[in-house]
Amino acid sequence: MIQKLLLGMLIVTVPFAFIGNFLGFAATMMFIVYSLAIVSLASYIGRATESLAIVSGPRIGGLLNVTFGNVVELTISVFALKAGFLSIVLASLTGAVISNLLLVAGLSFFIGGLKYKRQKFNIFDARHNAGLLMFCVVLSFVFPAVFASYLTEAEIMTMSVWIAVIMLILYFALLYFKLVSHRGVYAQKSDGQEDEEPEWNKKKAIIILASAAIAVAFISDMLVDTFEVVGETFGWTELFIGVIIVAIIGNSAENITAILMAFKNKMNISVEIAIGSTLQIAMFVTPLLVLLSLLLPVQMPLLFSMPALVAMVLSVFLSIFIFIDGDTNWFEGLILLAAYLIIGIGFYLI
Amino acid sequence: MIQKLLLGMLIVTVPFAFIGNFLGFAATMMFIVYSLAIVSLASYIGRATESLAIVSGPRIGGLLNVTFGNVVELTISVFALKAGFLSIVLASLTGAVISNLLLVAGLSFFIGGLKYKRQKFNIFDARHNAGLLMFCVVLSFVFPAVFASYLTEAEIMTMSVWIAVIMLILYFALLYFKLVSHRGVYAQKSDGQEDEEPEWNKKKAIIILASAAIAVAFISDMLVDTFEVVGETFGWTELFIGVIIVAIIGNSAENITAILMAFKNKMNISVEIAIGSTLQIAMFVTPLLVLLSLLLPVQMPLLFSMPALVAMVLSVFLSIFIFIDGDTNWFEGLILLAAYLIIGIGFYLI
Amino acid sequence: MIQKLLLGMLIVTVPFAFIGNFLGFAATMMFIVYSLAIVSLASYIGRATESLAIVSGPRIGGLLNVTFGNVVELTISVFALKAGFLSIVLASLTGAVISNLLLVAGLSFFIGGLKYKRQKFNIFDARHNAGLLMFCVVLSFVFPAVFASYLTEAEIMTMSVWIAVIMLILYFALLYFKLVSHRGVYAQKSDGQEDEEPEWNKKKAIIILASAAIAVAFISDMLVDTFEVVGETFGWTELFIGVIIVAIIGNSAENITAILMAFKNKMNISVEIAIGSTLQIAMFVTPLLVLLSLLLPVQMPLLFSMPALVAMVLSVFLSIFIFIDGDTNWFEGLILLAAYLIIGIGFYLI
Repeated sequence: MIQKLLLGMLIVTVPFAFIGNFLGFAATMMFIVYSLAIVSLASYIGRATESLAIVSGPRIGGLLNVTFGNVVELTISVFALKAGFLSIVLASLTGAVISNLLLVAGLSFFIGGLKYKRQKFNIFDARHNAGLLMFCVVLSFVFPAVFASYLTEAEIMTMSVWIAVIMLILYFALLYFKLVSHRGVYAQKSDGQEDEEPEWNKKKAIIILASAAIAVAFISDMLVDTFEVVGETFGWTELFIGVIIVAIIGNSAENITAILMAFKNKMNISVEIAIGSTLQIAMFVTPLLVLLSLLLPVQMPLLFSMPALVAMVLSVFLSIFIFIDGDTNWFEGLILLAAYLIIGIGFYLI
Repeated sequence: MIQKLLLGMLIVTVPFAFIGNFLGFAATMMFIVYSLAIVSLASYIGRATESLAIVSGPRIGGLLNVTFGNVVELTISVFALKAGFLSIVLASLTGAVISNLLLVAGLSFFIGGLKYKRQKFNIFDARHNAGLLMFCVVLSFVFPAVFASYLTEAEIMTMSVWIAVIMLILYFALLYFKLVSHRGVYAQKSDGQEDEEPEWNKKKAIIILASAAIAVAFISDMLVDTFEVVGETFGWTELFIGVIIVAIIGNSAENITAILMAFKNKMNISVEIAIGSTLQIAMFVTPLLVLLSLLLPVQMPLLFSMPALVAMVLSVFLSIFIFIDGDTNWFEGLILLAAYLIIGIGFYLI
Repeated sequence: MIQKLLLGMLIVTVPFAFIGNFLGFAATMMFIVYSLAIVSLASYIGRATESLAIVSGPRIGGLLNVTFGNVVELTISVFALKAGFLSIVLASLTGAVISNLLLVAGLSFFIGGLKYKRQKFNIFDARHNAGLLMFCVVLSFVFPAVFASYLTEAEIMTMSVWIAVIMLILYFALLYFKLVSHRGVYAQKSDGQEDEEPEWNKKKAIIILASAAIAVAFISDMLVDTFEVVGETFGWTELFIGVIIVAIIGNSAENITAILMAFKNKMNISVEIAIGSTLQIAMFVTPLLVLLSLLLPVQMPLLFSMPALVAMVLSVFLSIFIFIDGDTNWFEGLILLAAYLIIGIGFYLI
């Protein structure tokens, strides 16, 4: 029934999005149409990814989700950076980190927990990820912010480039570690998805995934153009749009997939999506944007604002202590959602 | 022998407290009388609670302790708030958090550890509590303090009210989670108290508990009136009285019960008292006072001072890493006590 | 082959160090000679300690390493303090903490991990150490720095002395706990070194250890005199020399021993060296220097600079989350090394 609803929404909103954009309909209305179109497309991305995950195993499945989930963020960020909107880019990266750790994981744990009393996931991954989150969000983002007040602007950019290079090397070392060197070394009991039939075969899943991803990228681009008018209409600041609105819509694909997986008790994939996506934003997208900005007129140092840093650091610490036992329930999901709500209120008022 | 000493102290100090207050004896002397009276009454609260705990099981027993332990803090806070003493209220809430995590737990672990080489408690509770402490003390208290510098006073109060509402909802969700939805789901081996005989039967325990609690409330009220004179006499600042003195006397009930339980190797109850009491202060008493202050002339935002915040955050992180393995000994107790001493010295000098 | 290389280096550089110092050769050249001499002597300290460790068991072996590894730091610090160089002393203490947690442990995990897929160490020690690191580095160092802005200079020194006394008491309690009260209580499977033959017998090992340690102390003293010229030549700030250069050379003994142990899969000793050395610096050397400074013209309060504090706190949190599962691999080593590199770049630019 949900699937029929989403199919109907897709059939109505996606063509409407392109036609309305072409004809120049009112921005506030089109903002809603674009958002619904992305959400419905995201559900197809989710189902296609799930089919591929059944064929490819949880690790590759998680990686697929992360890749297709972050295409939107990367695209928006590159265009915004090219246009010189540094603060919106940093805000949307902040929002991606916070919403993956608190909103995506929170909804998965809460909704999954309404069905199952206790859900478990690989405790070795949880602990590995704790160290990585500490490294990339807490150390690599906080450290330059503290040292910046003792440095010149040129030195800050030098430090940012060095840190970006180190983070990218570590990111590729992580992929090598997970996929080659230690593939399966830390595996615990599987989620049991090998017993299941995929909804679509490999070829069909790839076609749906690819076309939905391309459509999402186009509509995201249109969506960005409506932000200015929508912000004025609803009284939202740029920071709130960047941290909360872009992140919720931009993460809807991960969100829907992670909840679907939680609902099927495949918590390894849910957690892989939430943390994997955070790590990809922090260790790959962010340093890549720092290096890309060297080719552009406006350079982007690795300097988040104080509210953004505090929100990210608190989110990381909270999620680490929620994740670290490899055991979830609805109440732990509720804690994460309450934290997301508090942070959202803060950015709304600021 | 200790019990006879405490009974003697009770018989001398409690009537003396009421008579001395009525006759207006010197404040410094009465301060000592009131303190001793509260400590001796607290031991009866402790023993009555223990008897009830044997009948009701460790979870309800812990809940009873928390409730009767925090009655004093809540009463003092409401009266001080009504009189407009915002900073004393926030200082005493800070003191309650710090002294529960460091002093109550520290004394329990240290004294219990002198008798037993290793003491264990439920590791699932320890990890659950780590996430909750991160949420309510670190996130909910630090976040508004950082954002406050970007907001107007009215916006700070709006944010405080929203956070207070979210915390209260989460607190009731926690009670539902522990007592209904997941009752016994995370239980490990019991502390073995079902084999024991309670000291008093249920009816007698309730009568002793109720009359001691009422007497403590009255004497606490008298005690507060002596603080100004005592502070001048001993050279104590308001902050030191709020954070250290009120907290030590106000927590003597929990302290004595927690140590008694540690001495009987019932670490689940000891830890439940220390952390449960902290959570009740942070998730229930504090947000309730924020909302109650809306009805009073002086409104109380959720804004702790920087020294108070740092002391609470450091206490939470230290206690989480001491608690997280579910295994205690005298040296871990000593670490907590050393931390309490350092924080106390800081607030004495400030 | 490595051993022959180190022996050759020793035979060339150690006599050259003393002769060159006597004849007053150029400081930049002698800086390199002194450094190579210390590194080659350190390898002998490492091998002698290993021989003693096989005879004495891993705990005493680890203690021996820590003692002989920190002799250099303590000697340099006392002389620098006597000469009034407060900031260099605090910088070198910072550097010792950071390089033990990130560089020594990082190299051990990385190089050990190239040979073994997974290496394990005692998980109880790891958790115990997490609490201790939180206490001494995070609480005892951060707390006075925050409170200092509310205090007079005399009050800051009073607070520093009290904290120093508390830390020293806790340090001796820790030794009593580990060596007497709870000796072997938390032992897991041994590292298996009892099957091995020591390289040198006890007497020979002690003689080599003692003479190498004395030579290291002398050459360290000469090394310090070259810092000013070397700093100007290479463009290094005092802070960079204190935090990075002194620490790398000063820790070369621990570094080489820890890597040798990791290479032999004796991770308990490796981790004991890295964390034990950090704890000895933070809980013993630092407070001792605060108390010793009372006898000197310039008093040293327990006040680290903001960059030093942030670097230490971030290192402690990162290493705790890397250590806490008692399981290491090359990638975890790489994370620690990446963090060390980022911090090093920060102190180079500052």
